[in-house]
Amino acid sequence: MSMKLSLNTWMYSSFPVWVPAYTLDETIKRIAGIGYDGIEIGAAAPHAYPAHLNKERRKEIKKLLDDSGIAVSSMLPAPGGGPGFNVASPLVEERQEAVDQYKKVIELCSDLGGPTVMYIAGWQIYGTPRIQAWNWSREALSKIAKTAADFGVMLVVEPTPTDSNLVESCDDAIEMMEQVGAKNVGLMFDTQHAYYRNEVPTDYVYRMDKDLRHVHLSEFGRLPPGAGRGDFVGLVAALRKIEYKGYLTMEIGFNRRDVEPDLVARQAYDYLKPLVSKK
Amino acid sequence: MSMKLSLNTWMYSSFPVWVPAYTLDETIKRIAGIGYDGIEIGAAAPHAYPAHLNKERRKEIKKLLDDSGIAVSSMLPAPGGGPGFNVASPLVEERQEAVDQYKKVIELCSDLGGPTVMYIAGWQIYGTPRIQAWNWSREALSKIAKTAADFGVMLVVEPTPTDSNLVESCDDAIEMMEQVGAKNVGLMFDTQHAYYRNEVPTDYVYRMDKDLRHVHLSEFGRLPPGAGRGDFVGLVAALRKIEYKGYLTMEIGFNRRDVEPDLVARQAYDYLKPLVSKK
Amino acid sequence: MSMKLSLNTWMYSSFPVWVPAYTLDETIKRIAGIGYDGIEIGAAAPHAYPAHLNKERRKEIKKLLDDSGIAVSSMLPAPGGGPGFNVASPLVEERQEAVDQYKKVIELCSDLGGPTVMYIAGWQIYGTPRIQAWNWSREALSKIAKTAADFGVMLVVEPTPTDSNLVESCDDAIEMMEQVGAKNVGLMFDTQHAYYRNEVPTDYVYRMDKDLRHVHLSEFGRLPPGAGRGDFVGLVAALRKIEYKGYLTMEIGFNRRDVEPDLVARQAYDYLKPLVSKK
Amino acid sequence: MSMKLSLNTWMYSSFPVWVPAYTLDETIKRIAGIGYDGIEIGAAAPHAYPAHLNKERRKEIKKLLDDSGIAVSSMLPAPGGGPGFNVASPLVEERQEAVDQYKKVIELCSDLGGPTVMYIAGWQIYGTPRIQAWNWSREALSKIAKTAADFGVMLVVEPTPTDSNLVESCDDAIEMMEQVGAKNVGLMFDTQHAYYRNEVPTDYVYRMDKDLRHVHLSEFGRLPPGAGRGDFVGLVAALRKIEYKGYLTMEIGFNRRDVEPDLVARQAYDYLKPLVSKK
Repeated sequence: MSMKLSLNTWMYSSFPVWVPAYTLDETIKRIAGIGYDGIEIGAAAPHAYPAHLNKERRKEIKKLLDDSGIAVSSMLPAPGGGPGFNVASPLVEERQEAVDQYKKVIELCSDLGGPTVMYIAGWQIYGTPRIQAWNWSREALSKIAKTAADFGVMLVVEPTPTDSNLVESCDDAIEMMEQVGAKNVGLMFDTQHAYYRNEVPTDYVYRMDKDLRHVHLSEFGRLPPGAGRGDFVGLVAALRKIEYKGYLTMEIGFNRRDVEPDLVARQAYDYLKPLVSKK
Repeated sequence: MSMKLSLNTWMYSSFPVWVPAYTLDETIKRIAGIGYDGIEIGAAAPHAYPAHLNKERRKEIKKLLDDSGIAVSSMLPAPGGGPGFNVASPLVEERQEAVDQYKKVIELCSDLGGPTVMYIAGWQIYGTPRIQAWNWSREALSKIAKTAADFGVMLVVEPTPTDSNLVESCDDAIEMMEQVGAKNVGLMFDTQHAYYRNEVPTDYVYRMDKDLRHVHLSEFGRLPPGAGRGDFVGLVAALRKIEYKGYLTMEIGFNRRDVEPDLVARQAYDYLKPLVSKK
Repeated sequence: MSMKLSLNTWMYSSFPVWVPAYTLDETIKRIAGIGYDGIEIGAAAPHAYPAHLNKERRKEIKKLLDDSGIAVSSMLPAPGGGPGFNVASPLVEERQEAVDQYKKVIELCSDLGGPTVMYIAGWQIYGTPRIQAWNWSREALSKIAKTAADFGVMLVVEPTPTDSNLVESCDDAIEMMEQVGAKNVGLMFDTQHAYYRNEVPTDYVYRMDKDLRHVHLSEFGRLPPGAGRGDFVGLVAALRKIEYKGYLTMEIGFNRRDVEPDLVARQAYDYLKPLVSKK
Repeated sequence: MSMKLSLNTWMYSSFPVWVPAYTLDETIKRIAGIGYDGIEIGAAAPHAYPAHLNKERRKEIKKLLDDSGIAVSSMLPAPGGGPGFNVASPLVEERQEAVDQYKKVIELCSDLGGPTVMYIAGWQIYGTPRIQAWNWSREALSKIAKTAADFGVMLVVEPTPTDSNLVESCDDAIEMMEQVGAKNVGLMFDTQHAYYRNEVPTDYVYRMDKDLRHVHLSEFGRLPPGAGRGDFVGLVAALRKIEYKGYLTMEIGFNRRDVEPDLVARQAYDYLKPLVSKK
């Protein structure tokens, strides 16, 4: 069976660099046009900041997705920036707003037919002991998981050492998942973050095993798969071994203003499609 | 007379990279400890996202600033990320939220005793004609200027070609200011953005002249002044010629995770203090 | 008061590269000759593998140290290589041998008049959950701490993310120390490891505070302080603020065969001596 | 006849870098799974430090090897690190321990069904004349060869100029072999070491001729064959000419923490298998 390919939208959005930026409608059409099975929509303006999208607009987007023959593989909030959305912030106001934002993203994801929302566990601000930051994050995840359960959405904990300092490794993510102990909390990993730690992505596959519900593909530095030294042949083989059924989502190209989104999207697709199509 | 030196807080915040990050209290103490006269506070978590700071907390911050002998030189919103705050967005919801956010930043700035808020004119999303984006931005600035006037706050329009595509040049900023025609709307520029366009910073000084109310200093790539090829001797001389009375604010180091904020802050101060102290 | 400078011996030893290598006698004389107050002796052949040094030889070394006017600041085992000495190994035989080796190093350190032995918390082998590796390491440290107490030796836990995957951060080290809860277990950090994580060394100083008992200085890549971008001016200032009383030990140059040990030792000394001598 | 391919285990071990590291069982399964005929087991923790493996464990390993359809091509000690195992050390204690360690490795190799143990002739410590170091090494080899004969194991002398300074060249190895004059002492070479000296690997083949009993393949810098400038086509042809019957063993990838062992192992295999399979 062929694995499904998805593309994250940051590269077409204003996160974290402001330009280039395309409307969500334009982005959906382009990604579907390249051939992707799924789209991972970042909950950021001008695409999908929940507070900016009323019910009517959500229906429009859902219709466009259906008409374009592409599914929402997943959604994620946009941590950092103004509101922060750091679930481990020392400011109670920020933690509360972060939890609320996750709930809004879950609802939006559900409205668009998506099954999965990523959980970014936050980061320690200087002065907060790690154990305190960890506990805040765990408490947030517990609350968010309940809302997600109501909407039938799976949450996946992602190690993000490239950008943060709280859930950094495969084991950190497993520990967070186990401490929360909710049926709809699973795991994911991103090859970029594994490379940042000089670790081996297939180790993540075998360690996460049946709890692995989502995967991000990227060469180091957010280059498209095939443009670096990443072993995506080995990775796909390992995913087949554990009978992985989720999407392979490219999270690429979004870290530089001079990106050509269509080019990078196509390069990743052209490299991976034959790999995932092999019997 | 010696010119006043100020430091922007992004480098100590979670914008746009998430770590390192310090609390605002810690940041104020450190910047004051190095010797800066002023602090430019970015309106981002965990420092100063307006919605996160109640009246009591604002008084605490004001007291800490006073006790530390440092003034708020200026504030600015955190464009991009989740809510976008792009005043030129094709989404009416985003434009409205951006205007509201500016008003909140102005109020917060006033609460902290600051005289100046920067105006980032937004950016074109693919599909929006420039004239349309421009008009939306101008309308936003007009509205924001009224609120600023109520609070006695000056707005300064900044060309930001490094990150955006709407107000890119000295002339764009002048044109925007003139079209709005409000007494409390002036100009600023950032040497990084001038270098991005391969332009000469002193040209900005002489062109903006009496309307120049705020200046950002940075070597290309957000290195501290003195670490690159920037001609800050010439720049200070030009500013003296036009009898510039505002702050020289360092906006540096915030674009990379591996920054040591105290080091960069000190390097900039140690390089500039003698320059601005000369008679 | 001037802070004391010490030099680690790896660069003159056969660890981890085999050449250049000098006898311990030669190494002591050279390091003392440059002006260092202390020497940190790695417990590796041909210098100081405990099993290779009988009582008589230890007395000879002690006398040479005294005659040369240099003190043993600290010792550490040589993890990795044949016996591994990984206190978190899945092999019970290796864990036991590692604990025994630490005890031998402590005795040797005491014989040579040294006050401090470093604790390298080991690393996870694929297949061992982190919590299991952590517990093995914590149990080992508890046992070792008792022996150290008998010899009046302080153990210092070091985060070593550059090489390992168990105690990676400031908080990991603090947590390990607190879980063991022995009076003679404190903390240390190495600037190289902080830089590897893109973190700020002074954050370690303030967080570890009174528990900070030992410090390793190195530019990223094991270059001598002053040869890179490290902020050792800021670091020394922070150490003064917390009234640090331990050694500043250079652990440099040992990662490449083409090193000239005397050169690198001298460069570090010449750069740091004026910094630590300032009032 | 097709030549047999083998893979050295350092890359999956904690030597000399500590991570990534896999258990020996995992390593055997992976290497066999890729298709290798043989495995060269380094005598280092956590794989095969002799003191860590009791008789029962050795039988388990042997069974796993047989079940996996892979043979032990060879073993080697882990020189350097704590105990040094430098047969040319000025410390009599270290020399004695090195000889003992070789004997233990030979016994282990025999227990696992391996025919060959590599001899690393040690290195000069500053202050030891070369002739003295040479004689110590020769005496050690003579003793070790007797034990090897008892176990039916062949010893092969390897020039290792990349890391040492005693047996550096083809002629040094030949001279050492001839001075010892034992039937079970032969020769080997490693292309990495030949490239380090800017020499031609096929020169080693023809010079060593019938005494050549083992070969290490590696591009310069420990890259897998095919990833650099090495002429492995010519090398295989030369080996056919002298009717070489031993293994071609990859000793690659182990010098960097960011290696993906499976990837490098597969790249080397995929490149070499067609070359050695040609008639």
